[in-house]
Amino acid sequence: MHTEILVSEVGPRDGLQSIGQIMPTEQKKAWIAAEAAAGVREIEVGSFVPPKLLPQMADTSEIVSFARTIPGLTVAVLVPNLRGAQAAIEAGAHKITLPLSVSESHSLANLRRTHDQIIEESRAIAALIAEQPEDQRPHFEGSLSTVFGCTLEGAIPLPQILRLAERLMDAGCDEVGLSDTTGYADPRAVREMIKAVRGVVGEDALTGIHLHNTRGLGLANVLAALEEGLNTVDSSLGGIGGCPFAPGASGNIVTEDLVFMLQAMGLKTGIDLPRLLEVRKIIEQALSEEPLYGFTPDAGLPLGFTPETVTSAKEAAE
Amino acid sequence: MHTEILVSEVGPRDGLQSIGQIMPTEQKKAWIAAEAAAGVREIEVGSFVPPKLLPQMADTSEIVSFARTIPGLTVAVLVPNLRGAQAAIEAGAHKITLPLSVSESHSLANLRRTHDQIIEESRAIAALIAEQPEDQRPHFEGSLSTVFGCTLEGAIPLPQILRLAERLMDAGCDEVGLSDTTGYADPRAVREMIKAVRGVVGEDALTGIHLHNTRGLGLANVLAALEEGLNTVDSSLGGIGGCPFAPGASGNIVTEDLVFMLQAMGLKTGIDLPRLLEVRKIIEQALSEEPLYGFTPDAGLPLGFTPETVTSAKEAAE
Repeated sequence: MHTEILVSEVGPRDGLQSIGQIMPTEQKKAWIAAEAAAGVREIEVGSFVPPKLLPQMADTSEIVSFARTIPGLTVAVLVPNLRGAQAAIEAGAHKITLPLSVSESHSLANLRRTHDQIIEESRAIAALIAEQPEDQRPHFEGSLSTVFGCTLEGAIPLPQILRLAERLMDAGCDEVGLSDTTGYADPRAVREMIKAVRGVVGEDALTGIHLHNTRGLGLANVLAALEEGLNTVDSSLGGIGGCPFAPGASGNIVTEDLVFMLQAMGLKTGIDLPRLLEVRKIIEQALSEEPLYGFTPDAGLPLGFTPETVTSAKEAAE
Repeated sequence: MHTEILVSEVGPRDGLQSIGQIMPTEQKKAWIAAEAAAGVREIEVGSFVPPKLLPQMADTSEIVSFARTIPGLTVAVLVPNLRGAQAAIEAGAHKITLPLSVSESHSLANLRRTHDQIIEESRAIAALIAEQPEDQRPHFEGSLSTVFGCTLEGAIPLPQILRLAERLMDAGCDEVGLSDTTGYADPRAVREMIKAVRGVVGEDALTGIHLHNTRGLGLANVLAALEEGLNTVDSSLGGIGGCPFAPGASGNIVTEDLVFMLQAMGLKTGIDLPRLLEVRKIIEQALSEEPLYGFTPDAGLPLGFTPETVTSAKEAAE
């Protein structure tokens, strides 16, 4: 198991795009700045999708520009296609994730594209990235969503998943990620999927996982992923978000509980946990209608628990 | 990892003794009967404590007598002392658990007894059991509570825990159990504690664990315990209960989510999961004021998920 784990906050993208309320730009910036100040090193700050489709994400360019000014922070975004990637590169995102749903029904419902079309997009995005000056090329991840099963198709055949992972890498992705869009994963499935996908793309090309807590297994699945050697875990402050196109599937892993688990296990996150817990207030104020999840914020830290001593992202960059 | 896991339902004891409402005897019986019919093989049905202290448990004798009529069901009870054990044996309990809080402050607050006094009780209980006809001797477990830390003392020194485990076995317990009374456990601590305690009592004398979900780590901790070779896990339907004497610590592991995880991993529980989910209605009706927890009941089972095919406890006994 790696001893240093990268917690990748996806709340400003996955959380905010799933809910009805639109968070004002200034509050998004306050949230991102506060989490970075608490030591979070990577934040998915938005997605480049048409504002008509997701008005919650209309200010993503401005948010990326702002987030880039925070020293030490990796600014990640989600894009559905080449046009989104162009906007992401213009704005200066450090990391671009293109989702490919291994269930073709879900892909059509979610992105209105077939597998072949998404692979074509990924190839075009990789070509666009290659045209950029070397020091300005964003990291490019193809994310295999519904990889643990789909609410429309059920389990997806493993050979189909592995073939798509290979095709994404062939198309020019730097790595692939696994995404339990529907909350179907269990610890055994997580282990087996990581082994299988690494078998075709190699160890270095699969380091991260996006898990949901739909059936309460989120952190157990994280544990399995860490034991299998991954070192990057997505989560959302207050657990907000999930996939709006997969009915019944909601609930990201709660960043607060995840960081508590990692630190309790003696793993390094670089995050100041008491300070992270304070960031919750920003979301509570901005999204008064949204329920926030998480157990650690209510229960508090155990008596005698020593949170990790950290340097902020800013200090780390200095 | 064992492939067959015993889910030990503790709701009728741990759940009901933690809440204000008193469940009528007939509804307790309906709950226990329904869970046994869904395939649950062990239920902690009550505790033998003075009714003045816990009026919720005043009918435990009658409940034990009833539960004994259910074929194939192991009827477990909790006792705080010799007098409780006498009542348990008279009623015909199959399994008796005596809690020993490894934190002496918590032991004094919870059971009003020092460690030496609890060890004396355990010796007296073991002697009483030895006096019974061989085929009527209940299984006797000493449960090490607050073993992952105490809200009053913080972390408890490991040598103190190991010495108490040894003393319980020397006093005549058949086995010891681990109990995360305060919800302080994490997967690494679970693994290390199991290894350490098994190191002094032997593998056969530590098979079960009682974990809480106080900080959301319940199922991750279960996974660690299973991977370390335990095969018995406590949980509570709807997650009701916790420890009423440990402020801020509440929330048992939810039986529904636990069984889903185990079955999703391909482990055998003997439990009919869809039928188990139905049992929830009995508690909802009987305890209208209590919030019920659990994710799987809301999310439902994944598309294409094949629940374990089971024979009921009754059929299994025939």
